[in-house]
Amino acid sequence: MYPLADGLIAARNQWYIAAWSKEVTRTPMERWIANQPVAFYRTEAGEAVAVGGRCPHRHFPLGKGRVVGDAIECLYHGFTFDRSGKCVHIPTQQQVPAVCRIPSYPLVERWEWLWIWPGDPEKADPGLIPDHRELGLLDPAYSATGGVYYPVPGRYTLMHDNLLDLSHLGYLHRSTIASDGIAEAEEVRDEGSGWLRSTRKMPNVSCPPIFAQFLHHEGRVDRAFGMKWYMPALHAGFDNFHEVAAKACTGRLLGAIKVFHAITPGRLNDAHYFFGMARTFAKDNAAVGEAFINGLRVTLVEDMSATREIETMLGSLPEMPQEILVRGDTHCVRGRRMLENMIRAEQSMAT
Amino acid sequence: MYPLADGLIAARNQWYIAAWSKEVTRTPMERWIANQPVAFYRTEAGEAVAVGGRCPHRHFPLGKGRVVGDAIECLYHGFTFDRSGKCVHIPTQQQVPAVCRIPSYPLVERWEWLWIWPGDPEKADPGLIPDHRELGLLDPAYSATGGVYYPVPGRYTLMHDNLLDLSHLGYLHRSTIASDGIAEAEEVRDEGSGWLRSTRKMPNVSCPPIFAQFLHHEGRVDRAFGMKWYMPALHAGFDNFHEVAAKACTGRLLGAIKVFHAITPGRLNDAHYFFGMARTFAKDNAAVGEAFINGLRVTLVEDMSATREIETMLGSLPEMPQEILVRGDTHCVRGRRMLENMIRAEQSMAT
Amino acid sequence: MYPLADGLIAARNQWYIAAWSKEVTRTPMERWIANQPVAFYRTEAGEAVAVGGRCPHRHFPLGKGRVVGDAIECLYHGFTFDRSGKCVHIPTQQQVPAVCRIPSYPLVERWEWLWIWPGDPEKADPGLIPDHRELGLLDPAYSATGGVYYPVPGRYTLMHDNLLDLSHLGYLHRSTIASDGIAEAEEVRDEGSGWLRSTRKMPNVSCPPIFAQFLHHEGRVDRAFGMKWYMPALHAGFDNFHEVAAKACTGRLLGAIKVFHAITPGRLNDAHYFFGMARTFAKDNAAVGEAFINGLRVTLVEDMSATREIETMLGSLPEMPQEILVRGDTHCVRGRRMLENMIRAEQSMAT
Repeated sequence: MYPLADGLIAARNQWYIAAWSKEVTRTPMERWIANQPVAFYRTEAGEAVAVGGRCPHRHFPLGKGRVVGDAIECLYHGFTFDRSGKCVHIPTQQQVPAVCRIPSYPLVERWEWLWIWPGDPEKADPGLIPDHRELGLLDPAYSATGGVYYPVPGRYTLMHDNLLDLSHLGYLHRSTIASDGIAEAEEVRDEGSGWLRSTRKMPNVSCPPIFAQFLHHEGRVDRAFGMKWYMPALHAGFDNFHEVAAKACTGRLLGAIKVFHAITPGRLNDAHYFFGMARTFAKDNAAVGEAFINGLRVTLVEDMSATREIETMLGSLPEMPQEILVRGDTHCVRGRRMLENMIRAEQSMAT
Repeated sequence: MYPLADGLIAARNQWYIAAWSKEVTRTPMERWIANQPVAFYRTEAGEAVAVGGRCPHRHFPLGKGRVVGDAIECLYHGFTFDRSGKCVHIPTQQQVPAVCRIPSYPLVERWEWLWIWPGDPEKADPGLIPDHRELGLLDPAYSATGGVYYPVPGRYTLMHDNLLDLSHLGYLHRSTIASDGIAEAEEVRDEGSGWLRSTRKMPNVSCPPIFAQFLHHEGRVDRAFGMKWYMPALHAGFDNFHEVAAKACTGRLLGAIKVFHAITPGRLNDAHYFFGMARTFAKDNAAVGEAFINGLRVTLVEDMSATREIETMLGSLPEMPQEILVRGDTHCVRGRRMLENMIRAEQSMAT
Repeated sequence: MYPLADGLIAARNQWYIAAWSKEVTRTPMERWIANQPVAFYRTEAGEAVAVGGRCPHRHFPLGKGRVVGDAIECLYHGFTFDRSGKCVHIPTQQQVPAVCRIPSYPLVERWEWLWIWPGDPEKADPGLIPDHRELGLLDPAYSATGGVYYPVPGRYTLMHDNLLDLSHLGYLHRSTIASDGIAEAEEVRDEGSGWLRSTRKMPNVSCPPIFAQFLHHEGRVDRAFGMKWYMPALHAGFDNFHEVAAKACTGRLLGAIKVFHAITPGRLNDAHYFFGMARTFAKDNAAVGEAFINGLRVTLVEDMSATREIETMLGSLPEMPQEILVRGDTHCVRGRRMLENMIRAEQSMAT
């Protein structure tokens, strides 16, 4: 499925962000992950659970049911499943046939979010989740703020296209988070096993109003920023503002910011977007974190709007058009190939 | 089409409820029945008429037109059809070609509703309509109330699934019309030619608030209830409340209630739901009937919501999943087979 | 595609109305024409421009971008295209590959509207646009008013069906612009190369209220009216009101009105409708023209509603039904054949 090759949708044997911790409570929640319905809830001990979100009896969404002890009960006829996905109660009979069960998905709670493995639980290795200390989320040098969620009005791959080509800051986000010349700045690209990184160093550029506000800085800055994609789920951005110096980005650090964009496939034409950030300044003042992240919502909505426009365009075109790829798309194209390889490897393993 | 076998949709050579009598007036009404558009209106003498709802000239919905004498006139170009479906006027010419005609559907007005035969009129035998005296609708022992209509946000078969497995009262209708243990109570099933019946006798159970209110009863009851399906169109429920006695359901009758659920196929993914009821008490007080039936609307909306959830789930799943069938689904599965046989018999007769 | 033969949609090598002049400004506008997205804007010199509405880089709608000088810049990554469709700027690199370009569509501004040629620019001959003086739009004998636009909630061909059978005035527009007996009046049909004309002369008929109001006339009239289709884009109606005379339509002319219905294919199931009119009376009073055209909006909405009803009906029917064609459909059928021939000729030339 565009922009991937025909028939390739999304890898399932991978970790994705499923939800913010605070979203999952004793009242079940329903969310589609990688084209599967999933129900989320917490056990009496407070542990987060993810099981298949469709009751296999009549296809009623389990996420619209209720939690009974550590199990989830279907609202329709009361079929009840424990956290392993095993059916433990069918009201109209004593025995429960072994075939009556739903998937159970590995779930790892880390920092403020929940990582899900929507594929084969046997293959789920928590060690594959990006290191949250390295990310800056569990690093004492930073103070992190989370909690922002948007449903993405388009296929998840459009958001990867978005995040793998930061030249869009100069246009889509022109009036919110761009510095002058940001699209034209030289992009340094590197990659490793399972990641891609893009970096831009910009000497003596304008400081966008929202950063100026939170850095309490007036005037121009040296700005070093970029993004590292921990594929497939998370893009971790870094944005360092320095006093202007003769050698770019060597002046006093005014503040360093990390931004976290988690993209999770939903149904075929929608996805989930979780946004968090971390900062090196005003670390003890949570209100600053909240004000800052809320100030960035305008920017995030710009991305949601662009995604909606493109999804709508793709849905209206009588046939899938050719697209023009340029040098700035190097990482975007590389990322698509990596996703395709990941999905193909998973499919060949399954057969 | 799920839950029926592939390619099987709905029987047409059958009687279905098309509308409440009061819905059909001198102003035409449009409604899809068994995947066909139908226009309804009344003649000058007050007789209800059902004809094909699509003008064969330009496909404009005749139900959006107007009635002229005993005929219906298309709003667009004035083509006019009599109650037999024959075109009787084409404004732009004198003669009317014989080929210009629309279907006319047999319609029988009985009690407060209109039964339609959306198939071959030659085969329509009013004797096949369930006996309304037996139903309790035209039985002096009961006082009946009708008039409740809901568009069903899902395929009609989901409502049969619903009504053929009353264990859902204990869950979906837990807080409205359930007694404790209703899903677990033993179900007695019997069937005959064209009908299925399910009965549960429950000694010494809680009386749901709405029944307690209208029976003016406090405390527990013996409850005998169930449903008889007059296939394909009508499920007639019975619900008898007795004073608790040593032998279940032999104590003084506090009140007997009948409920009528008429399910009519609409388009592929929607349907019509007509609900009525009858009672043995406060028979001369129509206001009691109105208050009672309105009190049950919450319950009906629970069914509509469940149907919507399942239809949405089926529409979102990338492929039709296997379902788990258990003992409580005996009648549900039997009902599906009866519908399939009915449709297949009709198709083989047509060829 | 109904009502044309299977696989035939719309001719592209033809002139269509794309927009009202006033709609196209320095702020770009997006509109689908003949199944293609188009972006419209004006150059610094005020010339109207139409280019392909999809950025070939990421499929973002260019009509949601901004104008820079005489070029249009994509909102997403800043790709910029001049009015010829040539890409003139890619922010992330110095050179622009020649393959990076979008279509540019010939656009002719005449009277208050913009004619577009959504096909091969080589074939675009402005001489093929109907003569606006002959139409009455640039004729000093008339005073013209334009500016009314409606999105059509159905395929464009339904509007041609509508305008090629004026008997619908007697029914759909019964209470707005009909005279008595208008559907039954004899229709005189003639045609020539690229046009069809229908005329009705009606002696001594009622004068619809809106015409009576603007003609300041009470009582009956002789009315000569009809429509000439300049295929494929424009239907020019004429409506002459005379004092009743012994020989029909020879009495004093109370007023002559022309109406212009431009129909432009949009996406598969929608279209564009531009309505203008001209009159021989109160020529110097623009307010009369505005009041008159606004008074006709009710009539236009009746047509939009009928189109929506039919499009919905076609979308709901399980299969495409046969339609009944009568003598009054002569021009309607002739018009469909002419459109089919036009599309087929274009396709055979393309291969």
